[in-house]
Amino acid sequence: MLIVQKYGGTSVANVERIKAVAERVVKTVEEGNKVVVIVSAMAGETDKLINLAYQVSPNPSEREMDLLLSSGERVTTALMAMAIEALGYKAIALTGRQAGIITDSVHTKAKIEKITADRVINALNEGYIVVIAGFQGITEDDLEVTTLGRGGSDLSAVAIASAIKSDLCEIYTDVEGVYTTDPNIVSEARKLDKISYEEMLEMASLGAKVLQTRSVEFAMKYEVPIIVRSSFSDKPGTLVTKEDKDMEKVVVSGVTYDKNQAKITIIGLPDKPGIAAKLFNGIAKANIVVDMIVQNVSSDGKYADISFTVPKTDLNKAFTLSKEIANELGAKDVIYKDDISKISIIGVGMRTHSGVAAQMFEALAKHGINIMTISTSEIKISCIIEAKYTELAVRVLHDVFKLSEKANV
Amino acid sequence: MLIVQKYGGTSVANVERIKAVAERVVKTVEEGNKVVVIVSAMAGETDKLINLAYQVSPNPSEREMDLLLSSGERVTTALMAMAIEALGYKAIALTGRQAGIITDSVHTKAKIEKITADRVINALNEGYIVVIAGFQGITEDDLEVTTLGRGGSDLSAVAIASAIKSDLCEIYTDVEGVYTTDPNIVSEARKLDKISYEEMLEMASLGAKVLQTRSVEFAMKYEVPIIVRSSFSDKPGTLVTKEDKDMEKVVVSGVTYDKNQAKITIIGLPDKPGIAAKLFNGIAKANIVVDMIVQNVSSDGKYADISFTVPKTDLNKAFTLSKEIANELGAKDVIYKDDISKISIIGVGMRTHSGVAAQMFEALAKHGINIMTISTSEIKISCIIEAKYTELAVRVLHDVFKLSEKANV
Repeated sequence: MLIVQKYGGTSVANVERIKAVAERVVKTVEEGNKVVVIVSAMAGETDKLINLAYQVSPNPSEREMDLLLSSGERVTTALMAMAIEALGYKAIALTGRQAGIITDSVHTKAKIEKITADRVINALNEGYIVVIAGFQGITEDDLEVTTLGRGGSDLSAVAIASAIKSDLCEIYTDVEGVYTTDPNIVSEARKLDKISYEEMLEMASLGAKVLQTRSVEFAMKYEVPIIVRSSFSDKPGTLVTKEDKDMEKVVVSGVTYDKNQAKITIIGLPDKPGIAAKLFNGIAKANIVVDMIVQNVSSDGKYADISFTVPKTDLNKAFTLSKEIANELGAKDVIYKDDISKISIIGVGMRTHSGVAAQMFEALAKHGINIMTISTSEIKISCIIEAKYTELAVRVLHDVFKLSEKANV
Repeated sequence: MLIVQKYGGTSVANVERIKAVAERVVKTVEEGNKVVVIVSAMAGETDKLINLAYQVSPNPSEREMDLLLSSGERVTTALMAMAIEALGYKAIALTGRQAGIITDSVHTKAKIEKITADRVINALNEGYIVVIAGFQGITEDDLEVTTLGRGGSDLSAVAIASAIKSDLCEIYTDVEGVYTTDPNIVSEARKLDKISYEEMLEMASLGAKVLQTRSVEFAMKYEVPIIVRSSFSDKPGTLVTKEDKDMEKVVVSGVTYDKNQAKITIIGLPDKPGIAAKLFNGIAKANIVVDMIVQNVSSDGKYADISFTVPKTDLNKAFTLSKEIANELGAKDVIYKDDISKISIIGVGMRTHSGVAAQMFEALAKHGINIMTISTSEIKISCIIEAKYTELAVRVLHDVFKLSEKANV
């Protein structure tokens, strides 16, 4: 098999870890596979560099930031190739540029445009274990160094896996796979053997930090099978793959929570067409991502209240902006609430099962947990609740949907 | 003026130093100059990376070593550009590749083949302060990352200065210029205002660690004027330039010493043609650089003793090798001595002044310092003495040639 293995920062945090990973890579090769290794920077290294940047400049340029941060993966890539060679195998370290990872020119959050992986494929054919720097790429015209944003090494791995038509993309991390919920909150949380891309996507964007969202989207689009597993054990991990018939039998696959949200409510907006568009255009222009939006119209139909959630880090900016816009639009008041939490249940089986939402609301109500806002999609239901109930809500839902029991599929 | 400024590791050792250098750069620009900045890695960073490499592999590949080490200069380059921008000036950070530093493919000690500095020149014309990563380059065909060897950033600076036809190349370091000798040994050591390339070359290769030897050779070849000065003060430094008439009036410009030498003597070699060639070919093949060679033939003309010096770090290897070769050649014995030191006096004025050597030998003899080996060139005389006399010899010679007095030129 041709396997891409990606190792995150904690997996290559120090010399001992790098050597342990090199052994794992060699073992995979000894089992008859060809291996491409994608590495992140050593844990803490990227934060250290960002910190240095902000010490020399209050507003470091994004182009230079990319040049700065790309050095972290160069270090681990070179060290990993050396460590593999020390075990007696041919290895070659390639930068994002050398691996042909071509991106657009949006520094610090570049998108992969294409991968010209000739050099990777040639090196594999010559018997090399290929080690590639994750997180980084290069623009096609100016050959500028770019980075793919936080967690970008996952995307590098999936994109390379797709480009070289690898059979599997293993994402090694410090947890043993994807769990039904956070094991720190629910001790009976169960590791899933298998999960669909769609579910994983909801899991990832809803705060389960195992896989970067864009990498899952990419994997889904190009049908790259991913295995999430731990570099600290030999346990099999979780397969992220196309939805199959069996998966639909499981109604709810996981419970997630996100404490990094804040809610802004604009009270008494005149209920005229175009009002919501004006508000959210203004907020979008400030590059703030709005998540859940709920609008209620007053009984006389004249006024509307609009609530929406934003990442907590954007609350100040969003609140100031909302007040300005609300003022222009003639609203009565703007308030915010930042001690909230978003609880979600996710499962492709919801599509074919009814009553799941009711079951969720009922379970929360039974434990005195008030729901402030609800939002649903085909395969997930999210509720905003008071932050203090987060852990309780997670436990209640995990229990109600019997997630600690392995489904009979 | 168009000025290239190179800042070594101690000059950019931390955030405070980087900010201080940024201010110096900006000051130079405010005085009406265009500036290109070459930076080394932060002090200690390169050693840290080398150390990591040897922790993961007893024998790290040189290609990967280059990739690893090149990350250090990327970091300072990006940080320096950010720090300059924070002062309100346009700055752009370029890697060796982006600055067009093309080298051969001899990893860890690549030679610069050419510089295609279009991007540097364009950026200068667009009003940018250009910050370039020293020490690194790229091969033309494979676009492999290379490094220029220890002290290579000096060479980067001189080569860029030559390529963009800059008026001056300032090498900033942690000393205030080139001294007549080591001020730690002779407190009256005087900073030279001016020194010729030839003299600087002898100084550099004889152990005065101010400027990398190859950078001086390059500067001499392309007539790039260099100023060596401190980034920690505003003192004017030492100009390294073409020899002029005034310089010849000064007989001796400096006294240097090198404690990093060891001497190997092969006793009783049959004195046949080709013996020396066989010996030194064998040693050269092991990549050991031999410095001074002296051969004495016995009174009956049948046997020869050959002594030569090698860097102390190569002594073990060279001694083992010498014993093997000496055995093959039928020599009587091989001995070594590692408590030696090489003392040299340097000056372009020697060419036109006689009796300098005699004056040197006499001064040493007068203080009971025995000379083991002598070697001379047009502008220098070197003696091997016992290591314990090093400081005494330096003081005696500095005194005899009146180096603390400024010459009346």
